[in-house]
Amino acid sequence: MVSKLELHVEVLMITTGGSRIAIISDETASLLGVHSSDRININYGGKQMIAIANIAPYFPKNRIGFYQETVEALGVKEDETVDVRLAPLPESLFNVRAKLHGERLREKDVFGIVNDVVERHLSDVEIAAFLTALSIHGLSTAENEALSRAMVATGKTLDFGKGPILDKHSVGGIPGDKTSMLVVPIVAAAGFTIPKTSSRAITSPAGTADRVETLCPVNLSINEIKDVVAKTNGCLVWGGALELAPADDLFIQVEYPLGIDPMLLPSILSKKKAMGATHVAIDIPTGMAAKIKTRTEAYTLASDFVDLGKRLGLNIQCALTFGDQPLGCSIGPALEAREALTTLMGGGPPDLRDKAVSLAGMLFEMVGVENGGAKAEEMIDSGKAEAKMREIIGAQGGNQKVKPDDLPVGTEMVEVRSEHAGKVIWLSTEDIVRIAREAGAPREKGAGLVLHAKLGETVHKDSVLFEIYAERGSKLASALELAKQLSPIVLTKKPAEKMILDQVPEKLSHEKTFMLDR
Amino acid sequence: MVSKLELHVEVLMITTGGSRIAIISDETASLLGVHSSDRININYGGKQMIAIANIAPYFPKNRIGFYQETVEALGVKEDETVDVRLAPLPESLFNVRAKLHGERLREKDVFGIVNDVVERHLSDVEIAAFLTALSIHGLSTAENEALSRAMVATGKTLDFGKGPILDKHSVGGIPGDKTSMLVVPIVAAAGFTIPKTSSRAITSPAGTADRVETLCPVNLSINEIKDVVAKTNGCLVWGGALELAPADDLFIQVEYPLGIDPMLLPSILSKKKAMGATHVAIDIPTGMAAKIKTRTEAYTLASDFVDLGKRLGLNIQCALTFGDQPLGCSIGPALEAREALTTLMGGGPPDLRDKAVSLAGMLFEMVGVENGGAKAEEMIDSGKAEAKMREIIGAQGGNQKVKPDDLPVGTEMVEVRSEHAGKVIWLSTEDIVRIAREAGAPREKGAGLVLHAKLGETVHKDSVLFEIYAERGSKLASALELAKQLSPIVLTKKPAEKMILDQVPEKLSHEKTFMLDR
Repeated sequence: MVSKLELHVEVLMITTGGSRIAIISDETASLLGVHSSDRININYGGKQMIAIANIAPYFPKNRIGFYQETVEALGVKEDETVDVRLAPLPESLFNVRAKLHGERLREKDVFGIVNDVVERHLSDVEIAAFLTALSIHGLSTAENEALSRAMVATGKTLDFGKGPILDKHSVGGIPGDKTSMLVVPIVAAAGFTIPKTSSRAITSPAGTADRVETLCPVNLSINEIKDVVAKTNGCLVWGGALELAPADDLFIQVEYPLGIDPMLLPSILSKKKAMGATHVAIDIPTGMAAKIKTRTEAYTLASDFVDLGKRLGLNIQCALTFGDQPLGCSIGPALEAREALTTLMGGGPPDLRDKAVSLAGMLFEMVGVENGGAKAEEMIDSGKAEAKMREIIGAQGGNQKVKPDDLPVGTEMVEVRSEHAGKVIWLSTEDIVRIAREAGAPREKGAGLVLHAKLGETVHKDSVLFEIYAERGSKLASALELAKQLSPIVLTKKPAEKMILDQVPEKLSHEKTFMLDR
Repeated sequence: MVSKLELHVEVLMITTGGSRIAIISDETASLLGVHSSDRININYGGKQMIAIANIAPYFPKNRIGFYQETVEALGVKEDETVDVRLAPLPESLFNVRAKLHGERLREKDVFGIVNDVVERHLSDVEIAAFLTALSIHGLSTAENEALSRAMVATGKTLDFGKGPILDKHSVGGIPGDKTSMLVVPIVAAAGFTIPKTSSRAITSPAGTADRVETLCPVNLSINEIKDVVAKTNGCLVWGGALELAPADDLFIQVEYPLGIDPMLLPSILSKKKAMGATHVAIDIPTGMAAKIKTRTEAYTLASDFVDLGKRLGLNIQCALTFGDQPLGCSIGPALEAREALTTLMGGGPPDLRDKAVSLAGMLFEMVGVENGGAKAEEMIDSGKAEAKMREIIGAQGGNQKVKPDDLPVGTEMVEVRSEHAGKVIWLSTEDIVRIAREAGAPREKGAGLVLHAKLGETVHKDSVLFEIYAERGSKLASALELAKQLSPIVLTKKPAEKMILDQVPEKLSHEKTFMLDR
């Protein structure tokens, strides 16, 4: 075993998406005492770097392969020489291991882990094990606080220079939930500051960023956001490229294939904190089809949010909302933007209006406005909320004068009708999501569904249950086929067919819906 | 979103070590609806392959990057065209997710996972999450059985054509444990078949394969093993390249950085089963310095071994052995081979002889020999075990006439002496391992330690406590420095200095020894 080797650089013309990985041959690894996933220390003319070793059989033994990220960070060129030695394991890895064994982590341990995630000193395997352990063991309030603070500290933050800063967030899981597109203009119209960042859909048919993008650009820089908020009190932008809590983005990449979401609380609150929020309304949709299934779960989560908020200096109130069916009638980016605009203009489905008014009213009361709900109603009825929405659309670079019908939706449309009369006793939101995505949502912004029958409504034989919109005929056809197969809207006559949920040992399906959209 | 894209192949001149990974640009990924770690289906002139997508920003958008493994499997060339589409997630991933939520897996679920590990359809992130979940939730006996069977079914197996086939295994953790080098010739000398595969050191100063390699080649093919066993009844070979239970090798790669070992039972027994074993003696070293710390733990593990053995058709007996100090006196490949040979020749330390005789005796009684211990003693005392060892050495391609002193050990040597008189009340095997590795073991085969004082022995001022051997002066110097710093042998006068184990909140050290050698 040798303590150090001189190796020649082989520049690989590809990026890893961030990880600092170096490739060495198995012979070189053996000489240096390096095992797969050990760290190596690379010295190039005095510049030091830690990289994770990938051991490749047949890689030339006097060479070390660097991806673009490493090449750029070191400023090294093809064939140049670097000194390579085995590096000790990072302290953060021992803390990850401690978590695997169920130990509680101290604040500085958590900071070390988050920092090493952002600095790419921990591999995906180690991050996966950490998140799995968190998912199984759960997080203490102190760990949630430390994770939130560490994620804020390792990213960018905004300061709007004055308070209060209001914000609203849904833990998600309800298709058609375009509430933010109403709450932001209602709150901003009343003179309060509400800089809202949203996500794009990962597993759903539309995220708020996807919806708003049909009205105006959402990919704004931090300075552009400041300008829009200075002009209008609000904004509706995509938060993904702002590097607020970048550790969270890296965690989400690993959580996605695993279908776990252990960092829900710090993930949400770190981003609110980074945006400078002081008062946050959290929407917890609760129902068998939502992310949160039971009221007990919802109350626990709500009190966790409030506690963690207090520790982070955030004033938080949570609303448990009805989560057993989609919100409003439309699902899919453009269809939902139409519905949101219509509702701001005084029309729209009553459940959407009620939810937006309630959440905006809650925010108003949190900052001292009496009778917040009435204030929110007034903002819509007076046309002030609509005017504010148009101001925001204009400030973000969209057409202020847009009418709901101007927004292009899929030209391919089909109606799905009821085969018999009955009352709607159950809607499978999960199946509705699948059909909307099959039709092309969220990528094809005009694709989606419009529901004509919701819970408790009576339908006649041949009534339209829902319409499917698509931008291309092939997508429409496969969405329709799926709709026929799934029958997502269940009428009173059918429940007996659905009594058997699953069959053991022959499971009908292993697939469980996993929602990661925030 | 499009359902399919034609992409041009970019051949990357490196291997991933097996994983089937394809690199596409973020734009291509977005068009196909592919997220990082989603699977894509690649079609090349009718040949289908599933690969895990790595999304690289700035990668050329009409191209797809293949590592060598994928290039070879598809037989594709630079710039050729392949059809690429989003593939459904594998069924096995849903079972991995189920395990994250603590569900029990059925036999066919486990087979699906193991098969997809071997076929590289599961990513390292997913394997890491699976192993972490197993480590935290534990495995049911049925899961252990299914894992063992699945690992055997996905690898090669040996059939020696006659029974019984005896074997011996230690769960490990005791430096200097060269017992296998005695048990194999003792058992074979009595006419029983004992084809022993061993591992190389990962975290220890020597594995049995490293020790035997100082006497003869250990990297034999399956056919060579059959020849050696046909001639001599036994063998002492390296199991790493035989593709017995290859899934286990992939699991170990992920377990190593995480410091977890949830598959101890199926890992060991799948390899025994693949070797065709019928009767297995398992050594469970028990002590504060061993892998298994307490008797309670050891008894639980032992009964798990016996139960799992029954389910797999293996007759198993376990021995709980004293694990509070190294076995014998020498540590390091060549030094240990010397000691093993000396003990076979009738000399050597009494603890090593006692352990070998006891384990061999246990095996004898398992196959119906009465008074097995006496039989084992007789094999040594009559010189038959030594003769058998020489036969095996010869059959494997080594020098049959080798004498212990012929084996080259480090020419650099230093004695570490006691600073005062006293009785040895504690040996830190952990520190002894660190010193031996610092001296160059296991890579430098002549490096290691020879202990002159073991538990309960009285030493005088200036007595030699241990010798350090190294192949180079620089290694000797740094091993000596470490030895002075660690003082691994504690005498009666010193315990007060060690009363504080750790300090909270300022931990002295996070580092916990992790042993993965099998």
